[in-house]
Amino acid sequence: MSSFMRRDIETMPVRLLFSAAEQLYPVWHGPLARQLEECGIDAEISDRTDHPETIDYIACSPNGPISDFKPFSRLKAVLSLWAGVEQLLDNPTIHRPIARMVDSGMTESMTAWVVGQTLRHHLGLDRVIANQDGTWHRELLPALPRATTVAVLGLGQLGRASAAMLSSLNFRVIGWSQRSKDLRGIECRTGRDGLESAVAEADIIVLLLPHTKATTNLVDATLLTKFKPGAMIINSGRGALIDEDALLDALTSGRIAHATLDVFQTEPLPREHPFWMHPHVTVSPHIAADTPVETAAAVIVENIRRGEHGMDFLYLADKDRGY
Amino acid sequence: MSSFMRRDIETMPVRLLFSAAEQLYPVWHGPLARQLEECGIDAEISDRTDHPETIDYIACSPNGPISDFKPFSRLKAVLSLWAGVEQLLDNPTIHRPIARMVDSGMTESMTAWVVGQTLRHHLGLDRVIANQDGTWHRELLPALPRATTVAVLGLGQLGRASAAMLSSLNFRVIGWSQRSKDLRGIECRTGRDGLESAVAEADIIVLLLPHTKATTNLVDATLLTKFKPGAMIINSGRGALIDEDALLDALTSGRIAHATLDVFQTEPLPREHPFWMHPHVTVSPHIAADTPVETAAAVIVENIRRGEHGMDFLYLADKDRGY
Repeated sequence: MSSFMRRDIETMPVRLLFSAAEQLYPVWHGPLARQLEECGIDAEISDRTDHPETIDYIACSPNGPISDFKPFSRLKAVLSLWAGVEQLLDNPTIHRPIARMVDSGMTESMTAWVVGQTLRHHLGLDRVIANQDGTWHRELLPALPRATTVAVLGLGQLGRASAAMLSSLNFRVIGWSQRSKDLRGIECRTGRDGLESAVAEADIIVLLLPHTKATTNLVDATLLTKFKPGAMIINSGRGALIDEDALLDALTSGRIAHATLDVFQTEPLPREHPFWMHPHVTVSPHIAADTPVETAAAVIVENIRRGEHGMDFLYLADKDRGY
Repeated sequence: MSSFMRRDIETMPVRLLFSAAEQLYPVWHGPLARQLEECGIDAEISDRTDHPETIDYIACSPNGPISDFKPFSRLKAVLSLWAGVEQLLDNPTIHRPIARMVDSGMTESMTAWVVGQTLRHHLGLDRVIANQDGTWHRELLPALPRATTVAVLGLGQLGRASAAMLSSLNFRVIGWSQRSKDLRGIECRTGRDGLESAVAEADIIVLLLPHTKATTNLVDATLLTKFKPGAMIINSGRGALIDEDALLDALTSGRIAHATLDVFQTEPLPREHPFWMHPHVTVSPHIAADTPVETAAAVIVENIRRGEHGMDFLYLADKDRGY
């Protein structure tokens, strides 16, 4: 059915350019080609940028090889392979819709990682794992989840999913987002006052915000003075959310008891970075959520299908909002 | 209203005997007394066993001081402070109803512990925590939860709650129980065949069974040969579920990759026990779930209220079933 409609509209194959790190093309090509065919879309996929004027769609990583999009004169949309699209939004040569990657596999892996790290800190698992010395430390008995407050900063698809799961576990959950939200079981706040009260009340603070001008270095020396003393930070959002020097100072003074960081200002985190050796920092090598190719390819293909049928694209980024 | 009904029925105060480790009485007395009063029940609480013929209810830990219940001639029910009541069921001097402790706080803490330990193993948190050497190990990227199978053995209140939460996280969850169950999102199995297929398919096996004659040493050398090679075991049910020598053999041979154990045949686990030093065992000092006094006292008081109004008791243990 969709194949008929497509051929009614146009008889030329759709041309999709894949633009990302070289080794990714063989990984993505199969799932994209198979799923396009299953959708009845006659498509040619390539990673070659010659003849840019023939390209209909670009599936790309935001840090990919293309910086000048002007030669892509018939482009219908830029389809990001990543959730974070700030580099594409900042590119002045893109005048076509930009779609973010919003993928069920990514949400699933991020939720597992955030809930796992939150429970690790709530349960004191590091101490239990370290305490194998023959002493029966019953004082390691954890509190009930209801006695621990978790703040989730960022209530997009990833933040909402983590906040909901933490609420199901009976943690008290405060959510903070740029625009006000109403989510069951979450105390939703917004604005600077909402941010400061959230970090003041929370035992564990999870960062799942996008990187925008407004969130760059959001966790800086000023905000860190508002955190509950002894709070723990989990960052699986973006490295740019945290002023790393200010966080190191707060960790050294003890105001922040621990930081588990999956993302950094510079990745891979340089070998000489003080986070590696800090006793109260866990460096995680950007493994909280990957883009699983099968489910992510389905998102790309669905947006191509929508474009070919004149439907609205899913997950459009917004320059004013910044993501 | 209930206070009127109570006084209509009887004018003598209800006599409640609290029988557990001596230091617990001052902890429980306040919540029990306050909640009984709030229910309009005129009660006298004591930890003294003189005048046993005047006692209406005994709230007790199953390993508590009373072994002979015959002198309690007017006893209406034995109300356990613990979930596990096998010692009370085995006591031939008890001829009155025995109620288990089924407490929302206990379920909440057990669920957090089981989900936290499961995510710890699924995410490989031990390796991430240990890998702080300046090397960016992207190969630590965990699989999606949907690629990991968790078997939950035991589908009572605790097992069902953990299984449901693991299913929400999108793990594949197999449940096994003595009687067949039908639970959304859980592949429920029963019988010996169901048990052997569950442990053969699962990457992580969670033990949340009660201790009965049928479950004593359930995880023995024979069953361990059926486990998926490299499986991980999490036991927060009862120590008696596992033949500890057989588990040590399976850990040493590598068939079982890891065991996280919160309960043991002997507690506290003796200092010289080989579990303490085993590189693939995490000893946890029986901290997965405590009985929080406030919520647990409410369960005791509710059963007294029911008894005084001639209603059925909640959470009755069954000698034939064994729990």
